[in-house]
Amino acid sequence: MKPSVGFIGLGLMGKPMSLNLLKAGFAVTVWNRTASRAEEVVAAGGTLATSAREVAANCDFLITIVSDPPALEEVLWGTNGQGGALSALKSGAIYMDSSTVSPDLARKIAAACAKQKVRFLDAPVTGGDWGARKGELLFMIGGDGETIKEAEPLLGVMGKKWFHLGPNGAGQTIKLAMNAILALQVEALAEAMALVSAAGLQPEKLVEVMQSSMARSGVLDVKSQNLLKGDYTPSFPLRLMLKDVNLAMELAKELGVTLPAVAAAQATYGAVKRDAKEDMDYSGVMRFWKK
Amino acid sequence: MKPSVGFIGLGLMGKPMSLNLLKAGFAVTVWNRTASRAEEVVAAGGTLATSAREVAANCDFLITIVSDPPALEEVLWGTNGQGGALSALKSGAIYMDSSTVSPDLARKIAAACAKQKVRFLDAPVTGGDWGARKGELLFMIGGDGETIKEAEPLLGVMGKKWFHLGPNGAGQTIKLAMNAILALQVEALAEAMALVSAAGLQPEKLVEVMQSSMARSGVLDVKSQNLLKGDYTPSFPLRLMLKDVNLAMELAKELGVTLPAVAAAQATYGAVKRDAKEDMDYSGVMRFWKK
Repeated sequence: MKPSVGFIGLGLMGKPMSLNLLKAGFAVTVWNRTASRAEEVVAAGGTLATSAREVAANCDFLITIVSDPPALEEVLWGTNGQGGALSALKSGAIYMDSSTVSPDLARKIAAACAKQKVRFLDAPVTGGDWGARKGELLFMIGGDGETIKEAEPLLGVMGKKWFHLGPNGAGQTIKLAMNAILALQVEALAEAMALVSAAGLQPEKLVEVMQSSMARSGVLDVKSQNLLKGDYTPSFPLRLMLKDVNLAMELAKELGVTLPAVAAAQATYGAVKRDAKEDMDYSGVMRFWKK
Repeated sequence: MKPSVGFIGLGLMGKPMSLNLLKAGFAVTVWNRTASRAEEVVAAGGTLATSAREVAANCDFLITIVSDPPALEEVLWGTNGQGGALSALKSGAIYMDSSTVSPDLARKIAAACAKQKVRFLDAPVTGGDWGARKGELLFMIGGDGETIKEAEPLLGVMGKKWFHLGPNGAGQTIKLAMNAILALQVEALAEAMALVSAAGLQPEKLVEVMQSSMARSGVLDVKSQNLLKGDYTPSFPLRLMLKDVNLAMELAKELGVTLPAVAAAQATYGAVKRDAKEDMDYSGVMRFWKK
């Protein structure tokens, strides 16, 4: 029998992920801080709960995907330690968090889960809203291999690949490293375009040469047109990329590792976010050079 | 009739490029600062000249590819303005420089050439020694379109693609932007691997996830194994990458453009070069974290 699924967080990623679970025949109970975002999921057969705690109390498999560590902590532990989802989870349940948070927070959640015999996976995703809609996300997972095996029927509906990377915290560590690389690749492209433009040449030419060379990349394929056209419609918002870069830098500090270029990107993304009036994609880092 | 070719600079790139011209039936006269490097080219049918000036005086089409701006200036203007190749070039000749130097130097050479009715192309290459051997280089060209048309029979022997990017200097500008991106992509990968390793995880896992994601890149394909294994056998030497990054930063300064992440990479590559006892590939920037 299929496990009953609880799903908390119906944002750009969570909504299509939960819709794919419904489409695959899972019974899904959902909750979102902004209730209106649940309408489409309810129309597709989802059950709307009145609180995160209610979702957790009534499922075999809980998934959360929220925007940042404070949002996740509020979902799990509630306000002032009251009404959080975590203590409502049933013994024997599996809880998988697909938010991007610090490895430390992932381990703290894992420890709290262990006390109530809940198995925890930190399983942040990559692949963007497009990957979420297509059911083609990648999951970077920290936790126990047996638990991942049990989660596979759900992982296969939401994603095309999943990687067991180590114990709890490993999924978040690899995710932070990945996003630091993506942030830097976009930063590199933006800096090079700024240089070429200042020299009076067309940055389109740079992109054309790169496509045929070793400088080709997924970032070039997906983001170069945004950078060239100044179209920063959010696919992955800059504020969330900056949050991830900040988390990577905090982790580096904890571990005593120097990351000079990531630090430079942190400053650039930070400056753009500070001046931004609207929400924008992280390719909007180009605004550092071109208003 | 095929133009007679002069070729100056028989390094990691120049040697296979000149061998491909010989194989295609061009008459090639060569010169190299270290004469022993010419042996293979002479054995393949090349004519060894006794000076750079002699090469220039006897060709319709001159190609130079040397390691840095001072080396190129010495070839072209000689020591104390005596014995350089440039003033020996015949009126009507074409001169193509495939070294990586500053756009300013390219424009200075173009101006000197124009005075003696020589047509100049700045045409730095990318594709590495492997691309040079296979005749699959990319040429980034600044100069006149008609001159490039005339150069095509030679370009097609040494390369698979060439891009007309603008007037003289444009080839060098795009090349510096390209190499700044490559330097930063390797830097990003090295920083992320350092973070993951410090967290006690295997950087191999990071590479595996990246291969399936938007973080995939030519750099990941070509350099990740070097970084993982600590094998820094020079393919493109770190000292030359640092030279190119330095040139990009000088250009940025001239143009009043801030490049925070390129500046960070400049410091990291610089620190590794300072401590390096042997020549190494630019993937050796990993030494900043892992001795």
